[in-house]
Amino acid sequence: MAQQENKNINTLIVGVGLIGGSFALSLREHGYTGRIVGVEASADHARRAVELGLVDEVVSLEEGVAVADLVVLATPVDTLPQLAVKVLNSVGPHQTVIDVGSTKEELCEMISHHTNRGRFVATHPMWGTEYSGPEAAQREAFVGRNVVVCEEERSDRDALALVEQIYADFGMPIVRMGAEEHDLHTAYVSHISHITSFALALTVLEKEREEQHIFDLAGGGFESTVRLAKSSARTWVPILMRNKYNVLDVLREHIHQLQVIRKQIERDDVEGLAESIGKANSIQRIIK
Amino acid sequence: MAQQENKNINTLIVGVGLIGGSFALSLREHGYTGRIVGVEASADHARRAVELGLVDEVVSLEEGVAVADLVVLATPVDTLPQLAVKVLNSVGPHQTVIDVGSTKEELCEMISHHTNRGRFVATHPMWGTEYSGPEAAQREAFVGRNVVVCEEERSDRDALALVEQIYADFGMPIVRMGAEEHDLHTAYVSHISHITSFALALTVLEKEREEQHIFDLAGGGFESTVRLAKSSARTWVPILMRNKYNVLDVLREHIHQLQVIRKQIERDDVEGLAESIGKANSIQRIIK
Repeated sequence: MAQQENKNINTLIVGVGLIGGSFALSLREHGYTGRIVGVEASADHARRAVELGLVDEVVSLEEGVAVADLVVLATPVDTLPQLAVKVLNSVGPHQTVIDVGSTKEELCEMISHHTNRGRFVATHPMWGTEYSGPEAAQREAFVGRNVVVCEEERSDRDALALVEQIYADFGMPIVRMGAEEHDLHTAYVSHISHITSFALALTVLEKEREEQHIFDLAGGGFESTVRLAKSSARTWVPILMRNKYNVLDVLREHIHQLQVIRKQIERDDVEGLAESIGKANSIQRIIK
Repeated sequence: MAQQENKNINTLIVGVGLIGGSFALSLREHGYTGRIVGVEASADHARRAVELGLVDEVVSLEEGVAVADLVVLATPVDTLPQLAVKVLNSVGPHQTVIDVGSTKEELCEMISHHTNRGRFVATHPMWGTEYSGPEAAQREAFVGRNVVVCEEERSDRDALALVEQIYADFGMPIVRMGAEEHDLHTAYVSHISHITSFALALTVLEKEREEQHIFDLAGGGFESTVRLAKSSARTWVPILMRNKYNVLDVLREHIHQLQVIRKQIERDDVEGLAESIGKANSIQRIIK
């Protein structure tokens, strides 16, 4: 029997930036009618979040949690474990708490024995841009993107059902994973891309002292490869540090692959380089 | 006195792939009315180039050069120096020859003492995609992109005027550089991006044995960083090998930058990593 969707939900967004703000816009976009309030550490971001209509009002965490059916934790990942515990400490049996962070293992461990663990659903929408803050929020951000849900067996059935309903309304297919597994695979696919891009920007800025040349010659594919290098340190330092061992593992492999290519070029190993590029090309089987 | 543009020009495109094909389409798009014929080593590409309307006919190099006002050399860069000499050997004083390749120093050196050097204009449109072959050609490819012209003082005035007219019609601002300078700066900005992307694809394919995970998690910025890894070995092995010393120089710096980031993560150097990312962010001053 199809259950009637309840879209009259009061939501609290903690951290009204790129992801939290986009979550708020997506709720409105998909017909959710309850109040949306925000908690925001930056006074400037708080003001802009209201001006841009992301949230109806900015409140304190206590005020917000008191009135919310759904609490969305969207702050940098280094703050999430403590924040999650604090919020779970004061929620009741009809409230649901989710996070939308990029690392999961530490967070899930911190709340694993909390008496309200069942009210929490650990989620990670696989979307982002290189921009941050409320201005970066987008209405159509999540449509068609996957969302990872971790340890769903630890969440109460009704909390999980609400979260599944919302992400289905957002047009997001759910991918299920353990928290440990999530952190491993996101290091391999997402986190390393950011390091690559930061290092590329630093390389070009170091070698190319004349910025005009970068500007003049950037058409040759540089923009897309360096795009993520605009991503903020406030978001990415915690992600890379919290996922340290997986990130270092894949980073070592990446440096090794660059050294292989360097040797092939040094030794005029045309066949070896062609083989490496041929192998790299096979990524197009996976990424359209 | 503004000179009347002559758009009734017979053109020979040697190598009717991504760039050669896009050049042909751009001529048509911008009102050039002469015949466009092609020389194409691959029988399959030759057939597709005619079917797609990129060229009116595929001919031999001799036939093509005999009838062309403008010859566009658009083959991989390892073939360009010899091809340029061969074509210059048989052109007359009213014909113009250009190349559109990604490296310039060796080519310009090879033709530097040719008696017909003046008929040659060395150019590099700063546009490309990760695809190759006639199917990859695009009508609007070059609009708004820069084109580098090298050693313009070595080209006859009328040959240069024709090339400047065409690129102006294509909507491409001209950037002037020496050949050596061009190869240095393209290594720093364009060639290193391709190596980064090839190495990233190899890294992810090596670490992430389950392709489904790559597919599921790719939303986090991976696609844009890995896009260039689809670029063909036939195009890129020669570019990287011909520009070996500049490429190795920037590649060493890139590996160094990755090692710095690795150490920062290993040592929990939050401040150092934040500083690195902050520096990398300054690329947004240059790249919109």
